[in-house]
Amino acid sequence: MPNPAPAAAPALADLERLLTRFRQVRAASEALCAPLEVEDFVIQSMPDVSPPKWHLAHVSWFFETFLLTPFLRGYRPLEPAYDHLFNSYYQTHGTPFPRAQRGLLSRPGVAEVYSYRAQVDAAIAELLRQPPAEHIEEIARRLELGLQHEQQHQELLLMDIKHILAQNPLQPAYRRDLPVPVAQPASVQRWHGYPGGLRHIGHAGDGFAFDCELPRHRVFVADFELASQPVSNADFLAFIEDGGYRRSAFWLSDGWNLVQQAGWQAPLYWQRRGGRWLEMTLAGLRELDRQAPVCHISFYEAEAYAAWAGARLPSEAEWEVAALEQPLNGNFIESGYLQPLAAAPGLDGPVQLYGDVWEWTGSAYRPYPGFRALEGSLGEYNGKFMCGQMVLRGGCCATPQAHIRASYRNFFYPAMRWQFAGLRLAREA
Amino acid sequence: MPNPAPAAAPALADLERLLTRFRQVRAASEALCAPLEVEDFVIQSMPDVSPPKWHLAHVSWFFETFLLTPFLRGYRPLEPAYDHLFNSYYQTHGTPFPRAQRGLLSRPGVAEVYSYRAQVDAAIAELLRQPPAEHIEEIARRLELGLQHEQQHQELLLMDIKHILAQNPLQPAYRRDLPVPVAQPASVQRWHGYPGGLRHIGHAGDGFAFDCELPRHRVFVADFELASQPVSNADFLAFIEDGGYRRSAFWLSDGWNLVQQAGWQAPLYWQRRGGRWLEMTLAGLRELDRQAPVCHISFYEAEAYAAWAGARLPSEAEWEVAALEQPLNGNFIESGYLQPLAAAPGLDGPVQLYGDVWEWTGSAYRPYPGFRALEGSLGEYNGKFMCGQMVLRGGCCATPQAHIRASYRNFFYPAMRWQFAGLRLAREA
Amino acid sequence: MPNPAPAAAPALADLERLLTRFRQVRAASEALCAPLEVEDFVIQSMPDVSPPKWHLAHVSWFFETFLLTPFLRGYRPLEPAYDHLFNSYYQTHGTPFPRAQRGLLSRPGVAEVYSYRAQVDAAIAELLRQPPAEHIEEIARRLELGLQHEQQHQELLLMDIKHILAQNPLQPAYRRDLPVPVAQPASVQRWHGYPGGLRHIGHAGDGFAFDCELPRHRVFVADFELASQPVSNADFLAFIEDGGYRRSAFWLSDGWNLVQQAGWQAPLYWQRRGGRWLEMTLAGLRELDRQAPVCHISFYEAEAYAAWAGARLPSEAEWEVAALEQPLNGNFIESGYLQPLAAAPGLDGPVQLYGDVWEWTGSAYRPYPGFRALEGSLGEYNGKFMCGQMVLRGGCCATPQAHIRASYRNFFYPAMRWQFAGLRLAREA
Amino acid sequence: MPNPAPAAAPALADLERLLTRFRQVRAASEALCAPLEVEDFVIQSMPDVSPPKWHLAHVSWFFETFLLTPFLRGYRPLEPAYDHLFNSYYQTHGTPFPRAQRGLLSRPGVAEVYSYRAQVDAAIAELLRQPPAEHIEEIARRLELGLQHEQQHQELLLMDIKHILAQNPLQPAYRRDLPVPVAQPASVQRWHGYPGGLRHIGHAGDGFAFDCELPRHRVFVADFELASQPVSNADFLAFIEDGGYRRSAFWLSDGWNLVQQAGWQAPLYWQRRGGRWLEMTLAGLRELDRQAPVCHISFYEAEAYAAWAGARLPSEAEWEVAALEQPLNGNFIESGYLQPLAAAPGLDGPVQLYGDVWEWTGSAYRPYPGFRALEGSLGEYNGKFMCGQMVLRGGCCATPQAHIRASYRNFFYPAMRWQFAGLRLAREA
Repeated sequence: MPNPAPAAAPALADLERLLTRFRQVRAASEALCAPLEVEDFVIQSMPDVSPPKWHLAHVSWFFETFLLTPFLRGYRPLEPAYDHLFNSYYQTHGTPFPRAQRGLLSRPGVAEVYSYRAQVDAAIAELLRQPPAEHIEEIARRLELGLQHEQQHQELLLMDIKHILAQNPLQPAYRRDLPVPVAQPASVQRWHGYPGGLRHIGHAGDGFAFDCELPRHRVFVADFELASQPVSNADFLAFIEDGGYRRSAFWLSDGWNLVQQAGWQAPLYWQRRGGRWLEMTLAGLRELDRQAPVCHISFYEAEAYAAWAGARLPSEAEWEVAALEQPLNGNFIESGYLQPLAAAPGLDGPVQLYGDVWEWTGSAYRPYPGFRALEGSLGEYNGKFMCGQMVLRGGCCATPQAHIRASYRNFFYPAMRWQFAGLRLAREA
Repeated sequence: MPNPAPAAAPALADLERLLTRFRQVRAASEALCAPLEVEDFVIQSMPDVSPPKWHLAHVSWFFETFLLTPFLRGYRPLEPAYDHLFNSYYQTHGTPFPRAQRGLLSRPGVAEVYSYRAQVDAAIAELLRQPPAEHIEEIARRLELGLQHEQQHQELLLMDIKHILAQNPLQPAYRRDLPVPVAQPASVQRWHGYPGGLRHIGHAGDGFAFDCELPRHRVFVADFELASQPVSNADFLAFIEDGGYRRSAFWLSDGWNLVQQAGWQAPLYWQRRGGRWLEMTLAGLRELDRQAPVCHISFYEAEAYAAWAGARLPSEAEWEVAALEQPLNGNFIESGYLQPLAAAPGLDGPVQLYGDVWEWTGSAYRPYPGFRALEGSLGEYNGKFMCGQMVLRGGCCATPQAHIRASYRNFFYPAMRWQFAGLRLAREA
Repeated sequence: MPNPAPAAAPALADLERLLTRFRQVRAASEALCAPLEVEDFVIQSMPDVSPPKWHLAHVSWFFETFLLTPFLRGYRPLEPAYDHLFNSYYQTHGTPFPRAQRGLLSRPGVAEVYSYRAQVDAAIAELLRQPPAEHIEEIARRLELGLQHEQQHQELLLMDIKHILAQNPLQPAYRRDLPVPVAQPASVQRWHGYPGGLRHIGHAGDGFAFDCELPRHRVFVADFELASQPVSNADFLAFIEDGGYRRSAFWLSDGWNLVQQAGWQAPLYWQRRGGRWLEMTLAGLRELDRQAPVCHISFYEAEAYAAWAGARLPSEAEWEVAALEQPLNGNFIESGYLQPLAAAPGLDGPVQLYGDVWEWTGSAYRPYPGFRALEGSLGEYNGKFMCGQMVLRGGCCATPQAHIRASYRNFFYPAMRWQFAGLRLAREA
Repeated sequence: MPNPAPAAAPALADLERLLTRFRQVRAASEALCAPLEVEDFVIQSMPDVSPPKWHLAHVSWFFETFLLTPFLRGYRPLEPAYDHLFNSYYQTHGTPFPRAQRGLLSRPGVAEVYSYRAQVDAAIAELLRQPPAEHIEEIARRLELGLQHEQQHQELLLMDIKHILAQNPLQPAYRRDLPVPVAQPASVQRWHGYPGGLRHIGHAGDGFAFDCELPRHRVFVADFELASQPVSNADFLAFIEDGGYRRSAFWLSDGWNLVQQAGWQAPLYWQRRGGRWLEMTLAGLRELDRQAPVCHISFYEAEAYAAWAGARLPSEAEWEVAALEQPLNGNFIESGYLQPLAAAPGLDGPVQLYGDVWEWTGSAYRPYPGFRALEGSLGEYNGKFMCGQMVLRGGCCATPQAHIRASYRNFFYPAMRWQFAGLRLAREA
């Protein structure tokens, strides 16, 4: 449960505030899609990617299914088939339309999806204005979850749009008007030491958190050191130039097999043109920014780099211990770059823990001791994915700032690269 | 060569007529796409299907590549990358964009594709108004080929649109306003006998033909009998109800394996709802028309039906011998049904040889004795597909009438079902 | 039916002769396996290959199923499960064990398979000594079919053994003691002309033939020319050195895709070592014999070679017309080389039509006009494979001489290479 | 390193003892293979399985490569190609023969593999009698590793033999003479509580351990409870009968997909015959022993069962804490049952932690904090597999008793079922 024991029922004023946030979050999703052509909304460039219009509809289905249908008296879904088409993976709620076939749906079209959003928006406003008294608490809780869910899909939208456009030999830009990062001098990586001991990790306090961040619990952490900043593109180029992708000794076995089979020679979206390295970005093809954090690498590449560098990835507990000491700011979606940035020089302490790139940790995504999934179909939100995936921490340049926190656990399969993922080194003290 | 030995060079008046036809054919393609939503233009529902906007662009690329670039002085392609994106399979002309990835291209968008068409149209008009004298003949020949090519893609467009929309659980119609066929009484199949002997098949005369219809040559045909009409849906239902899809004895080995693996139980697009059989059509879901010819079956199903019926498929020579005696008319695209129709009662002689459904023959698609492919990249048009496919004859309800003739050889792999294909029985006399 | 209308019932003396032949054929299969280690009998190197012990058991199952069980009173199969394990593809007779899993069966072991053979041999002898009078004719017919079937498997055994051993980096030889071919001088290919006209092809006379060779029928053949000998390894090397495997223009579309995907650069079993070409043979790795016919090529390679050479493959009718004029002798299994041989110099007329290598024809394997399959499960013997495969003619160095004739139709998918297949050129006169 | 800091160099007497153990371990492997037919040695029933003769050769290659070649002066490998064929996965030592193709090797045959073993045995004896003084310590260390490695392969041999024979419709037994377990009354599962606190886990002391069991380190464990015994077949049947394999709510997402796709309805090797449940064992098909621990289940099935039972899997730290309190005995390979046994009644405390079945834990197989792989190619032994796999603890009925200890970490992918794996429940206190 996101809020396992809220002190008191939310007042109507809280609902009013929620409605305002609801409108902001919903508008933000649509703003992200404004630069797209209608045709862009339809493409599914690989099974992990969803067409942008599917995202827009699915997040609306979430509100419809978990709030409107159960709580808004007399609510009639716009189209019964949407409950099939826009169910992502809730097996206990009907039969989801096959994920890999989302790109075969030309209908409902983009305009119809926006109509669907409008109907859901209006109905949510109606629900929040006259909520059934006995369900106010649950409504507030689920609405919060729905907003967090839509924020996750905002990041997914940017990841997927980038992947979709990058398949096209025309190499179209999502937006030509994105700001160009300021060049920064190379900075020197330093190590920051942390004393070992029994620590608490997991979500604390009243704010929202996903079930997977709970319960807060004790964990023993030995002395360790953490790098002052993420591994940069320049660092990663040194790995490549030292034969990183050709020397099996650095690699996990599954990673090495994948490198051989897929022919990986660099992070996703890198292109070599003559002697130059370019990078596909949401602003189109750009010169590789060497001081920026390396991005779009798999867990396997992160581990191989760390092995080559004589270090390792931090555990998620180590990462959280360090992050709790840092202010929660950084290069998030709001900065408008939509690309990781080089650190400004002269900063002290570990920087860029938040924003820029998700940082692969060495921890498998498994339940915390005492984990309890949400009740009902919402229990499928996180728990059923707790196998085979690795934890990433800190958010990235496509994450809404308000969505992130020190205890936030993101997770991807170790082979995946289309998320904005990089790494930071750690080592034994 | 389409016209192996034209008696004289085409006069300018001929070019004028060609330009008129060019405009008609080009307009017909766009008219076919008028009912589509922008989103429909983007979908590739299986590797054999192309997105409608790809078809519209590819046929334009054909004119650009084989006419404008070589013959129109100063012609500049709109976008160099199109030569990669819209090359279908001409390996000797650059590197075609991978076929199975055509559905990953949101750009160029639909509007840009129409602009591309407009530029090509204008340039062709310019070329035909002031053709280089020494190439007039070749220009006329290639323009004719380009028009025939575009007509083939008009049928492909309808096949692909039908397949695309049929994947969607919303079961959208291409056009709700298509005419509803008139119910016909059941007709009785009769056998028509043909005496054996040495016959000529292959294209004769001055008109256009594809290289694969040439050279005209002699073939010995034994006495045979041909059914008066194609196998109907009612006939095929009897096969199904007699266990046709469950009894291996009727099937070719490859066909039986496919039936097991794919779980086929009826022709493509058939759906059973309670005790009724429905059929997805370009007008949406309709009650199965039992007297209409069975359609959307593979060669394997055609052979299994024939084995069950104690008959066989005609050879392409037998079919051509019979068709030469019939007038070239039938239910083509111009009739506006876009669906096979039941035969009107009381007709004599083999009917529906032309139009309604392509008829699978028992002949493999191989070169005629003495076959010569066109020169250069155009030689890839037909010849390289002459292995593993079977010949179909007669055109269908999605074929332009002017495109068909008795000697016309269509071909598909034996497993394919998304074309408008049925069968007619033959037997030894 | 092999013998559509035998003039009279076979006398008991005929059965005696059949029994003698039965023993010879059965002994020949075992002699072929004598050089194998027990471990060799178990391997299935690709789905098309069967473990040698499976071959030995399957041909016995054929006699058991089609002769002993129906006709020998009181016959009890050695092991009921064999009817599942050793049924190759007779869907109307139980459920065949999955073909691709034949290599997972360690039991029955080699010794048990030989016991199974011995039981079948004894029972067949018993049946032939006291046959039920009313079935003598059918017994003789089926026994003949069983012997022809076992001879086919003798060739398959050699093909499969060669493939099995060739997978092994130790490159073991089947037999080190095979004779080494005598070097021959290069011979010059000449063309032999044949006048066109109406010809008869298909089996004639009283001898055995498979159902697919019938009925004898008329076919029109135009004037043509046939090469005096098969294409040699030296010829094929010239094709390779001229970029044959790198130039798409020579290839059928399916063939070109396969070349790209599989990385073919030479016939199967060829290896390049430094500047030399070696070839894996049943005698182990040997220097490529340049004057010998090229072998182990697919239909695609045969067609590509012919296109490169400005010629074509003969049709099966052309091949049969030419072969009927030649004596039926050549380099068959009995010569003991188990490898194609260079032609001796100075021979007149087309040579090597029989033996050495099966010759790919340009004809798809389809039923002859009026074809009728055998009754019952034996009807699955040939007819159900008549789609997607190409006809080869003439037998090879692994075929028993008594098994071949001018009308014999062998067939393989166009991608297959492990059979002893080469080509001979033809062209329009 | 197995022995990170041995106090003193081993004396020659130690080498003598090692040689004795070497001979015992080597003989034990051969004894395990004695019941096999030659044909059984060749089969690879899935890519994870290796042919028994490959195991016998590979463990010999390990001694040859890591002991004989570096340390025995003048040692000449029997056959240079074995270094390719019998290298399992050491990428930094040459190129391993592709794993999935091990079943294509008929040569070297079984007799040659035994000769290879004999040569290696003789050479090891020679090495140990006159070891180069400066390498005695490393030799002892590597020999110990080689023996532990061969013991691992003894268990793999039994797993693989069981899988190989189980594919065969004849359902052959490995040994008909295995003892039949004594029927036991149903026992009641109890919970045993463990107080939380900071604990040490990982290998301690002088004995051998694999690198992955090190370093010993502190971990915080909260209060927990552990079931008195593994989940039984009767327990698991209740899960099945309650729709366990049909209700998605119990399953991890990847597990549910696999259940759907593979059609799992029970543990591997279970067969339903009428109303009875049978189980394929190394003694052949037997009635399911309901009181015995459930075996041959994947991690997904273990997690689904635990979710259904309202409990969870223990972490590997919890398991180790509990196991350290128990005597190291149980039903290992030496008991001769080669099948998990029901617990004897009336035992107190958690029983069967050791032996019977490997117990899936909830812990991903990742390096311990401060982990260091061995130097050189031996560093590939464990470290490179530390991703995507789950830890199992305690050994099983096919594990040599001397091979196991409380800190022993086994690991398999979550989908794997052919190892002897079951589960024990845990829960929060």
